[in-house]
Amino acid sequence: MELELIERLRNESGMELLGDDAAVWGGKVFTVDMLTEGVDFILSEVESELVGRKSLAVNLSDIAAMGAVPEAVLIAISLPRNNSDKNLLLAEKLYAGMKPLLKKYNIKIIGGDTNCWDNGLVISITAIGSILPQGVFQRNGAKANDTILVTGELGGSILRHQFLFEPRIAEAIYLNQNHSIHAAIDISDGLAIDLYRVAKESGLGVIINSDTIPIAQDAIICSQTSRRSPIDHALSDGEDFELILAAPEEEAKKLIKSQPLLNRFGTKLSQIGKFTADKNMLIANSDKTIMKLEPKGFEHK
Amino acid sequence: MELELIERLRNESGMELLGDDAAVWGGKVFTVDMLTEGVDFILSEVESELVGRKSLAVNLSDIAAMGAVPEAVLIAISLPRNNSDKNLLLAEKLYAGMKPLLKKYNIKIIGGDTNCWDNGLVISITAIGSILPQGVFQRNGAKANDTILVTGELGGSILRHQFLFEPRIAEAIYLNQNHSIHAAIDISDGLAIDLYRVAKESGLGVIINSDTIPIAQDAIICSQTSRRSPIDHALSDGEDFELILAAPEEEAKKLIKSQPLLNRFGTKLSQIGKFTADKNMLIANSDKTIMKLEPKGFEHK
Repeated sequence: MELELIERLRNESGMELLGDDAAVWGGKVFTVDMLTEGVDFILSEVESELVGRKSLAVNLSDIAAMGAVPEAVLIAISLPRNNSDKNLLLAEKLYAGMKPLLKKYNIKIIGGDTNCWDNGLVISITAIGSILPQGVFQRNGAKANDTILVTGELGGSILRHQFLFEPRIAEAIYLNQNHSIHAAIDISDGLAIDLYRVAKESGLGVIINSDTIPIAQDAIICSQTSRRSPIDHALSDGEDFELILAAPEEEAKKLIKSQPLLNRFGTKLSQIGKFTADKNMLIANSDKTIMKLEPKGFEHK
Repeated sequence: MELELIERLRNESGMELLGDDAAVWGGKVFTVDMLTEGVDFILSEVESELVGRKSLAVNLSDIAAMGAVPEAVLIAISLPRNNSDKNLLLAEKLYAGMKPLLKKYNIKIIGGDTNCWDNGLVISITAIGSILPQGVFQRNGAKANDTILVTGELGGSILRHQFLFEPRIAEAIYLNQNHSIHAAIDISDGLAIDLYRVAKESGLGVIINSDTIPIAQDAIICSQTSRRSPIDHALSDGEDFELILAAPEEEAKKLIKSQPLLNRFGTKLSQIGKFTADKNMLIANSDKTIMKLEPKGFEHK
């Protein structure tokens, strides 16, 4: 639904459409994400602190995908109306869950709106970041033959990673300052669909190698009950919040060889394929067959 | 509930607390408001376009209360999940309701997040404004003996004004550029309580004259069924979104005499009392009795 809705709003309501994870405006980057109960979290199934943490971290991941430095947030919350005490406790837990990330990245809260209503919990955070002298990463900058890199491991984030992931801020800043990166996106809806977004914005296609995709342990665990393969989880599960990067072949070789992210931040960097002038989305399987890579992933229905 | 919650969050979660309608940060002003179905609007009782309009206008009113110039917004919406068509239509109407204000004040949409969920409609807008060379209006700048001025007419906004009010942007910019204004706030929760906020932040009290309070026609209409007097509506109804201003006595005299806002923008300016070194909140009634002015108003329970 969302894609169609955004498309129509773009055409009909004059809304500026953003190809990137955050908008560049007035020398800063800006992004907003609204998380809702039942869609982004089940309040009865997860600690409230982790809900608070996630609602902030998803925004920080967008800032990281721009290669920018998060500086400030505005936090709007509507609490389910139970009774004052429960609300206070819930609000405090949400903020307590945000606090370590705010502190770690030295982010200031510059605005807030906290209300109660008779429906579920909603948290909307606007995040603002500063732009490095090197500029920002964008989705449309990939070039044909650029290597496709991804941070971390993918798939199965529904188990816990969706709440515990570390936004790749430090990694993005390091890469932006020290390496040539042509394009970036964070994996919010799934590797295949987010890779498709970079390819489409850049006017390219991709060919990736299924053997090289870093599969998370949780993807394997999920596959035991889902009747889907671990690789399918890695390709189409949402909320990994890892970065997909496009880098020139030589630059990528250096990065893969020296693994600076692993050495500095404990974050593995994997080479999974390359962008192609041909606009097809392709995946090479272990048995050497080449198939169409469907841009599947989580869609906010 | 909200006041207590904010107080505790201030103390316990390290959240920056904002004395003003918007925060000054990085040379701009920032504010966020989240509007929710059933609290800020009843979707079945009002045109969706007006819901969209209101959700933007309340933020613009905050920018106006700072004497700043709105420049950009980020809009996050969670739509009730009915079916795609209904959602598209609702989203389009919301944006259609915002469009005239965006156009009138030349405001850019620099970010958005539109989702669906199984609960009511939520709209959270972050607004950003630029600061005039004259600086911003703050709540804590009132001085003893400053005249209290208010724009427009007050009370009964629940009838329609809450959706149709014009944020006092043009008036605030004019006043900031041409007159000495010591403090300002917009009336979101009610004249008495918002006046109390300025007095408290400025370390002052007030005495206002009930005969001089500009009473809206809608306050009179409301009083016919509410068993409350029109003046009570004007004092304690929320969502007037008029400005309360503190101005030096001589400056206020000039403003009242020449009524520049009325001549330029059609907006009446009334003198309703003064700030006092004595911290009492007082109201002089028609019969010359002086009573305590209770800081009553709408509280987001």
